[in-house]
Amino acid sequence: MKTHSILTVGSLAFDSIQTPAGKVDSVLGGSGNYFSIAASHYAPVEVVGVVGEDFPKDHLEWLSSRKIGVSGVKIAAGKTFHWVGSYDRNLNEAQTLSTSLNVFEHFDPHLSQRHREIPYVFLANIDPVLQQNVLDQIQTPRLVACDSMNFWITGKPTELRKTLARVDLLSINEGEAYLLSGHKNVMLAAMEIQKMGPSTVIIKRGEYGANLLTPSGFFIAPAYPTARVVDPTGAGDSFAGAVMGYLAEQGAHRDLAHSDPKQWERLLRRAVLAGSVMASFTVEDFSFRRLMNLKVSDLVERQAALMRMMSLE
Amino acid sequence: MKTHSILTVGSLAFDSIQTPAGKVDSVLGGSGNYFSIAASHYAPVEVVGVVGEDFPKDHLEWLSSRKIGVSGVKIAAGKTFHWVGSYDRNLNEAQTLSTSLNVFEHFDPHLSQRHREIPYVFLANIDPVLQQNVLDQIQTPRLVACDSMNFWITGKPTELRKTLARVDLLSINEGEAYLLSGHKNVMLAAMEIQKMGPSTVIIKRGEYGANLLTPSGFFIAPAYPTARVVDPTGAGDSFAGAVMGYLAEQGAHRDLAHSDPKQWERLLRRAVLAGSVMASFTVEDFSFRRLMNLKVSDLVERQAALMRMMSLE
Repeated sequence: MKTHSILTVGSLAFDSIQTPAGKVDSVLGGSGNYFSIAASHYAPVEVVGVVGEDFPKDHLEWLSSRKIGVSGVKIAAGKTFHWVGSYDRNLNEAQTLSTSLNVFEHFDPHLSQRHREIPYVFLANIDPVLQQNVLDQIQTPRLVACDSMNFWITGKPTELRKTLARVDLLSINEGEAYLLSGHKNVMLAAMEIQKMGPSTVIIKRGEYGANLLTPSGFFIAPAYPTARVVDPTGAGDSFAGAVMGYLAEQGAHRDLAHSDPKQWERLLRRAVLAGSVMASFTVEDFSFRRLMNLKVSDLVERQAALMRMMSLE
Repeated sequence: MKTHSILTVGSLAFDSIQTPAGKVDSVLGGSGNYFSIAASHYAPVEVVGVVGEDFPKDHLEWLSSRKIGVSGVKIAAGKTFHWVGSYDRNLNEAQTLSTSLNVFEHFDPHLSQRHREIPYVFLANIDPVLQQNVLDQIQTPRLVACDSMNFWITGKPTELRKTLARVDLLSINEGEAYLLSGHKNVMLAAMEIQKMGPSTVIIKRGEYGANLLTPSGFFIAPAYPTARVVDPTGAGDSFAGAVMGYLAEQGAHRDLAHSDPKQWERLLRRAVLAGSVMASFTVEDFSFRRLMNLKVSDLVERQAALMRMMSLE
C-alpha cells in the first residue's frame, strides 16, 4: 500500500434532490463517493462501504479507473441507501424528506489487511460506533479525520465524544459545530471542540467559506463565489476529500501539529483552500457530475483566482 | 475645509435594543453617530442631521472634541428619532419593533457653504430623495458613497436608482443587495448593482465579512471573529465610516477607479479591511461605547491579527 493512500468509510447512495435550479431522481451520491472522487485528484483512495444489487456496476468500474479502490465496497442483497432531500432559496441548509437506509442499515465495516495499513483515514458521517470500529482496525495511522452530523450529535453524544477523542481532525458544518459545542460563535465553537480531542477543527460555512483552528492559529478561508450554484449536496464531503487528498499528497503527519505547529498550520491552510476550491466545483451540477470531468488545470486556475480574491495586493 | 474631510448625512438617534446578551433602553445611536465616530479615527468629519430638544448636549460636545463637526446638526422642537429593535440568536439580522421618526420626519438637509465644499461624502441610509438633495448641493466631490435599506429599495425604487446613478460606491447589506439586484448570489448581485451606477460595490455579510467589487476585481474580506458579540447595531455604519475614513486619509479620488484601477483596487481592499476591523469592535458593546474608547493601537493590533487569519503563511 502506498504511503500516501487514503482510506475512507462512508456511504454510496442514490439521491433524489430538489433545488431552486432543478430536480433529479435517484442520481449517484453518498459521502464515500464525493469524498473519494475529490481526494483522488491528489492521492490514491480506497473506499469502504456497502451498496445494494441495484447499484450500477459501471460506476464502480469508473471509480476503479481513477485510482479509487472499490474492493472494500460490499454488494449486499437488497437496495442501495437512498436519500431524498431539498433545498430552499437559502442553499446552505438541506432538508431531509426521507432516508431509506436499506442495505446501509446493517453496515458493519470489516477491513482487509491491506486496508488496515493505509496511513490516511477519513471517517465520513456515519454512526460513531462504526467510526470507532474502523479505528480499532487501523494499524499505522498517520492522520485520522472525521465528519459528523446533527443526527449523531443529539442521538449518540457519548459515542461521538469517544470518536472525537481519537481523531486528529474534525471537519464539520457550522450549524453542527454550534450544536456540538453549545457555542453560537465560530471561534468559541472551534475552541470547545478542540478540547474534545481533535487538535485541528475545520468549520464549514457553505458559501461563506470555512474556518480552521489548529494548535497554533486560526484561518479564515473564503468560498469561491461561483455564480452557478445548482446543488450543494456533497460539497462538504468533497471539501474533506480535497483536504485529506492534499494532506496525504504532502505526507502530512499528525505529530506535526505539536512538533512543528508552523509547518502544520501552513499545510492545513493550503488544504482548506483546496477544499474550498473543490467544493465550489461540486455545487455547479447535480451529483458529482462536475467532479467527474474536472481537470487539474480547472483546480489550478480556480485556486489562483481565489487566492487573488483574498489577497490585499 | 481640509482636503481630507468627510461629510456625512444621517441620523442621530436613541435606540432601545434587545439582544441575547442583554437589553438597553434609549441609548445613543443612529447612522450619523456610528459613521462619524468610526471615520474620525482616520479623518476630520462633519455630520449633518437633526435631533430633538431631548438629545444630550454633552454628546454633541463630545463629538466636537474628536474632530467631528456638529454645526450641521440642527436641534429642532420635539423629540429625537427613536428606534426599537431586537435580534434573535442569529445576530446577523435586526427586527424592527417600532420606529418613531419624530423630528427626523421633516428632516431636509441644507448644507452650509463650508459643508458644500467637503470632498468626501457619505449618504447614510436615508430617503433617496434627501440623498439626491444633498448631492445637488455638493460642489467639489472627490468620492461619494451611500448606503440604503429594504424600506427604500421596495418603497422608492425609482428614486433610489437615481441616487445610485450618481454615487461612486454603494455599501449595502447582503440581504438588501439581493433584494435590490434580484440575484441571490453575491457575485451576480454585486455585478448587477454595479450596472446601476456605482463603480464600486461593497456587500456587507455580517459575521461572514464583506465582499468588494471594483471595475478590476473581486475581494473577499473576512470579519474579525470576535468572541464578544453583544449588539450588532451600527456595525454597518461604522464599517462604512472606517472605509470612507481610510479612503479620505489616503486621498483616494474616484477617477482612480478607471484611470488606475490597480491602485483603486489596492486602496479599496485595505479600506474594506479597515471597515471589517472597526465593525468587529462596534459589536462588542451596546451603542458606540466600544468605539468611544478605542485606541489606534487597538485598530492596529486587530488588523494585524485579521491579516494573519487570512494569510496562507
